[in-house]
Amino acid sequence: MISVVILGAGNVATHLFKAFNKVEQISVIQWYNRSTDALKTYKKEVEVIDDLSLLKEADLYILAVSDDAIKPLSSKLPFENRLVVHTSGAVGIYDIDKKHKRGVFYPLQTFSKTADVDFANVPICIEALESVDYHLLKKLAISIGSPTKKVNTDQRKVLHVAAVFVNNFTNQLYRMAHEITESEGAEFDLLKPLILETAKKVQDMSPYMAQTGPAKRNDKKTLRRHLKLLKDQHHTDIYNLLTTSIQLTHGRKKL
Amino acid sequence: MISVVILGAGNVATHLFKAFNKVEQISVIQWYNRSTDALKTYKKEVEVIDDLSLLKEADLYILAVSDDAIKPLSSKLPFENRLVVHTSGAVGIYDIDKKHKRGVFYPLQTFSKTADVDFANVPICIEALESVDYHLLKKLAISIGSPTKKVNTDQRKVLHVAAVFVNNFTNQLYRMAHEITESEGAEFDLLKPLILETAKKVQDMSPYMAQTGPAKRNDKKTLRRHLKLLKDQHHTDIYNLLTTSIQLTHGRKKL
Ligand SMILES: NC(=O)c1ccc[n+]([C@@H]2O[C@H](COP(=O)([O-])OP(=O)(O)OC[C@H]3O[C@@H](n4cnc5c(N)ncnc54)[C@H](OP(=O)(O)O)[C@@H]3O)[C@@H](O)[C@H]2O)c1
Ligand SMILES: NC(=O)c1ccc[n+]([C@@H]2O[C@H](COP(=O)([O-])OP(=O)(O)OC[C@H]3O[C@@H](n4cnc5c(N)ncnc54)[C@H](OP(=O)(O)O)[C@@H]3O)[C@@H](O)[C@H]2O)c1
Repeated sequence: MISVVILGAGNVATHLFKAFNKVEQISVIQWYNRSTDALKTYKKEVEVIDDLSLLKEADLYILAVSDDAIKPLSSKLPFENRLVVHTSGAVGIYDIDKKHKRGVFYPLQTFSKTADVDFANVPICIEALESVDYHLLKKLAISIGSPTKKVNTDQRKVLHVAAVFVNNFTNQLYRMAHEITESEGAEFDLLKPLILETAKKVQDMSPYMAQTGPAKRNDKKTLRRHLKLLKDQHHTDIYNLLTTSIQLTHGRKKL
Repeated sequence: MISVVILGAGNVATHLFKAFNKVEQISVIQWYNRSTDALKTYKKEVEVIDDLSLLKEADLYILAVSDDAIKPLSSKLPFENRLVVHTSGAVGIYDIDKKHKRGVFYPLQTFSKTADVDFANVPICIEALESVDYHLLKKLAISIGSPTKKVNTDQRKVLHVAAVFVNNFTNQLYRMAHEITESEGAEFDLLKPLILETAKKVQDMSPYMAQTGPAKRNDKKTLRRHLKLLKDQHHTDIYNLLTTSIQLTHGRKKL
């Protein structure tokens, strides 16, 4: 049995609590937030606190708080030499106060409060300074059905940037496609199967191999026709930059 | 029973043939290509020809050939007043020779020869000049399990551009994420569940509502940290342009 205290009441904290609470191997013994308002609904399931001095002894303390709060909160914890981890892709392991045993438990997925999360689809990137701590974190992740990977701080930080490309930036391309279609009264909905297929294709093929289309073929006529259709300068800029990018990748253009 | 002749032997022609051949309501009576080499393997299943003068009478002739070949091939067809359609997102309906009844049967999906296609995930954008032709095309699409939509040439052309955004450009963002992660020895594979989740999210939520991340939050510290991590000028350019784009969309920046 792994005993855990969760600190923070946001998206990550909430989804971790729900996942931990479902499995026998994990016991969430306390849930802390600076204000317990957000935790009201969970009072029957777990001890909810807003006072750090009430923290009990546990195998693991998870700081699932905003990036900037990790460092100060870790310093304020009224104990030492216990395992304290954060859940951030962007914050180093040494940002946790050195009086603790330190680690990172970074779930590489996008969470929102409303949508359910299946942790089988959430790779957990684990970092720890001691091997025994690493193994405890790995056991924890496996208990909720997540794949795990040992990832150091530098690697985690580039994964975090890369996640912005495949999540936020990709979503913004979907948004532009929405704008482009609606401008002609065409239905964005028609693109949804293609959106899914594009994501599925790279599950077992490299993005390099999966590429198709006019930019890769260097089909100048189609490229010109497309640019003529785009009315928003901003869409044109994206079209040009990404077309060039594809051409560089596929040897159609040299820097 | 709808009798069909397919012209062309590429990705689209091949997948349409396989789908048509599976259902009782459709009979592919001939398959034409300018060279029958590519069609050798199908000779037992269908009459394969490379001579236009051998074309038989059918309810429908599908020109699944390269965009530039649609116009000349339609002119060369040795008959008139029969229904002839092309499968292109980028070519107008009037590019088909006016001696024919004309239409478009555009499958909005990405096809490659190797991967199997489930036509339930292929919306067919239909255009026709006569209502009776429209209904025949719709019946054809429904027979292979595809959703259908009436789409005029202007709408189809913007769907085609928008498809480049959600397919080719998105795939290029995956490619950059691959480059970024590999440069630090981190695993691109860890991003795959996030890639899928991002595509799934917009299946029932608008991309506008689905957006998250540092650009939308205007989290300047994280944006700066990310830019410091990116070593390739080209990645930096994309990062800046798409960040600005998200900020414009979500009112963090004004033009
Ligand atoms: N959301 C994701 O998709 C995701 C994915 C992977 C990793 N992460 C990481 O997980 C961590 C939490 O993210 P989240 O999305 O769950 O954040 P969130 O929903 O914004 O919640 C942030 C939590 O931190 C608390 N907090 C903020 N400032 C604090 C302070 N100075 N002292 C104490 N508590 C403070 C907030 O308390 P109040 O309730 O009182 O405001 C809130 O409970 C971050 O490090 C983030 O980078 C997030
Ligand atoms: N691939 C997709 O994902 C996709 C999706 C939706 C719509 N489309 C549209 O579907 C159509 C076909 O695309 P595709 O991907 O199947 O193309 P493809 O795989 O490149 O095949 C093109 C076919 O056109 C034939 N062709 C080329 N030039 C010709 C000419 N001058 N005269 C006669 N035949 C000629 C080729 O004959 P040979 O075999 O002799 O070279 C080949 O059979 C295009 O209009 C395309 O825009 C494609």
